[in-house]
Amino acid sequence: MTREQVQHDVAVIGGGQLARMMQQPAIALGLRLSLLAEGPDVSAAQVIGDHVVGSHTDLDDLRSAVGDAPVVTFDHEHVPPEHLRALVAAGHACRPGPEALIHAQDKLVMRRRLTELGVPCPRWAHVTEPADVERFGFPAVVKTARGGYDGKGVWRVESAADLDEPLSAEGELLVEELVPFRRELSAQVARSATGEIVDYPVVESRQVDGVCSEVIAPAPNLDPALEAKARRIARTVAEELGVVGMLAVELFETDDDRVLVNELAMRPHNTGHWTIDGAVTSQFENHLRAVCGLPLGSSTPRQRWAVMVNVLGGSVTDLAAQREAALAAEPDVKIHLYGKAVKPGRKVGHVTAVGHDLEDVARRARRSAALLRDGVAS
Amino acid sequence: MTREQVQHDVAVIGGGQLARMMQQPAIALGLRLSLLAEGPDVSAAQVIGDHVVGSHTDLDDLRSAVGDAPVVTFDHEHVPPEHLRALVAAGHACRPGPEALIHAQDKLVMRRRLTELGVPCPRWAHVTEPADVERFGFPAVVKTARGGYDGKGVWRVESAADLDEPLSAEGELLVEELVPFRRELSAQVARSATGEIVDYPVVESRQVDGVCSEVIAPAPNLDPALEAKARRIARTVAEELGVVGMLAVELFETDDDRVLVNELAMRPHNTGHWTIDGAVTSQFENHLRAVCGLPLGSSTPRQRWAVMVNVLGGSVTDLAAQREAALAAEPDVKIHLYGKAVKPGRKVGHVTAVGHDLEDVARRARRSAALLRDGVAS
Repeated sequence: MTREQVQHDVAVIGGGQLARMMQQPAIALGLRLSLLAEGPDVSAAQVIGDHVVGSHTDLDDLRSAVGDAPVVTFDHEHVPPEHLRALVAAGHACRPGPEALIHAQDKLVMRRRLTELGVPCPRWAHVTEPADVERFGFPAVVKTARGGYDGKGVWRVESAADLDEPLSAEGELLVEELVPFRRELSAQVARSATGEIVDYPVVESRQVDGVCSEVIAPAPNLDPALEAKARRIARTVAEELGVVGMLAVELFETDDDRVLVNELAMRPHNTGHWTIDGAVTSQFENHLRAVCGLPLGSSTPRQRWAVMVNVLGGSVTDLAAQREAALAAEPDVKIHLYGKAVKPGRKVGHVTAVGHDLEDVARRARRSAALLRDGVAS
Repeated sequence: MTREQVQHDVAVIGGGQLARMMQQPAIALGLRLSLLAEGPDVSAAQVIGDHVVGSHTDLDDLRSAVGDAPVVTFDHEHVPPEHLRALVAAGHACRPGPEALIHAQDKLVMRRRLTELGVPCPRWAHVTEPADVERFGFPAVVKTARGGYDGKGVWRVESAADLDEPLSAEGELLVEELVPFRRELSAQVARSATGEIVDYPVVESRQVDGVCSEVIAPAPNLDPALEAKARRIARTVAEELGVVGMLAVELFETDDDRVLVNELAMRPHNTGHWTIDGAVTSQFENHLRAVCGLPLGSSTPRQRWAVMVNVLGGSVTDLAAQREAALAAEPDVKIHLYGKAVKPGRKVGHVTAVGHDLEDVARRARRSAALLRDGVAS
């Protein structure tokens, strides 16, 4: 049976690990996916047979991958808004749609809108010349409005001398206060095309060099008032911005007990990978249910604690060889490999442990990830 | 990238729902599957892109699907032993291998071997003429040695008059006593190519018209001595017969407190579907780990009870339309659809609920399955 003969339920744009991990619940739900993949053997193309190789910046490639799928969703936020509008005009439901997605694509648009909505953000300002940053005050953080991720497109600036690099970057810039924060949190909600919303427990996200290193669910010792506030922010953002699918709101928990929005992601997010093994319904399943307008599943945790540790490219290049040692060492830890070639610092997999004793759960997850990454327990 | 350029880890023969459900843990483990499918759009072919359409009775088709995969495993037991031996001779590890698999293919071979091993079976005899059954005594059960499944190839005989149909069936026959049993149990173990064994809790399996209707894990009120005996039988069979992969031993719990082996299956089995949502490691994941010689995962249940209910083809022909009602009614129940056209009585999906209160768990699972099957709650 050729691609053309199959009626796909959802087209996914982008062939990374997020699209890959959508295929598992798609199999269970009986949803058929098609895929636009960056290459013939990228992570998701390995497991979604009906894929087209092409670029998400090419409208013809997008149309070819989407075919007659009624719903289009995304592995990343990089599809140009004009292409999204063209797909919508052609009768496809883009979920999230271009009007929502722009807030995850452009930090200036996002800051303006959240500020209008009264959602707490770090102090910020638009930057067009060095004087804007000087007026704002040092130290501060300068960011490109578009295209940054995992610490890229973000500069900490201490004085005017630090502005040369950011100001030579392409596109618009903004400056934000350097927030004195205790830790980073993430609040996730699923919002269905029907308007139904389900929220997940707020988690703690630990970063190393701007990249998520591990996630503890729920965030330990989180003040219930702050947790409620974080959940409320995520619901407000999902509803007011018209998000359909998963929304992750990355937050700073400040030293003076506030939560401030750092970034938004409108798709399954690294801080929600724990839900595959740790919640009744994973973020990937609820994302698919949401974009298809299906009723959402329970977000209840399966155990008291879940700890997710990313496997970043390390000293081991043959992950398959290390899989054996990791599985042998921790028969209760669930490993998830992305089928990607190992490069230093690249996200090539993650592991999740669940249980009643946080210290034990974290120890098991970290040990398994260390074995996969470096071939030795940390 | 073409099929030929990909190094597959495991070739799966047969494109039914068991192969389909292997793809989910294969994605997580980073194992690449190829598939021999009966048709271009059968259940597993929908989700395993690298498939060859052909017949499991055709050696060329088998070779074409297997390619250079080092390991071959199965969705069913119907590959002819001589073809399995040809694949082994060509350097592929068939798991389970032909010497083990024959015991799941031929009930006469199975009864002889289990009897030699001292594994408790119903009283049985080889049948070549009506007199053999008359000597054995009525009432009894006559079975074809090969090819029966889900109640097919099995006849209850009350007198010599009932023997015409079974004796006209193709192939060898055996007769077994009609065991007065309280209920049916199933004992599953995973046995890795390394020899490592992990056993699962013994479950109760309820049949309607010879087809599994639901499974309760663990079997309620099972005498611990009988449970230990069932587990021991499953381990013995796995070790003595050299099974690699999942083994299901279907058992009768007799009215006089014995357990007797009914049938063997050397693959993931309907009575183990509850493990996807109810155990730390599903039978599908442990099957793949076992056939790849990887360490096995924990079989510990995630909750006190799990109830799996099969969705058999019923009055609803458009499962996708009913999916919405089922998901809305039971946000905690996990549904698994097989991508198969609905035919009366055909297994087209299953649902699983887990929790602490058996009555509530069973009620939720049955309600969800009834909504999928008939569009109304039972």
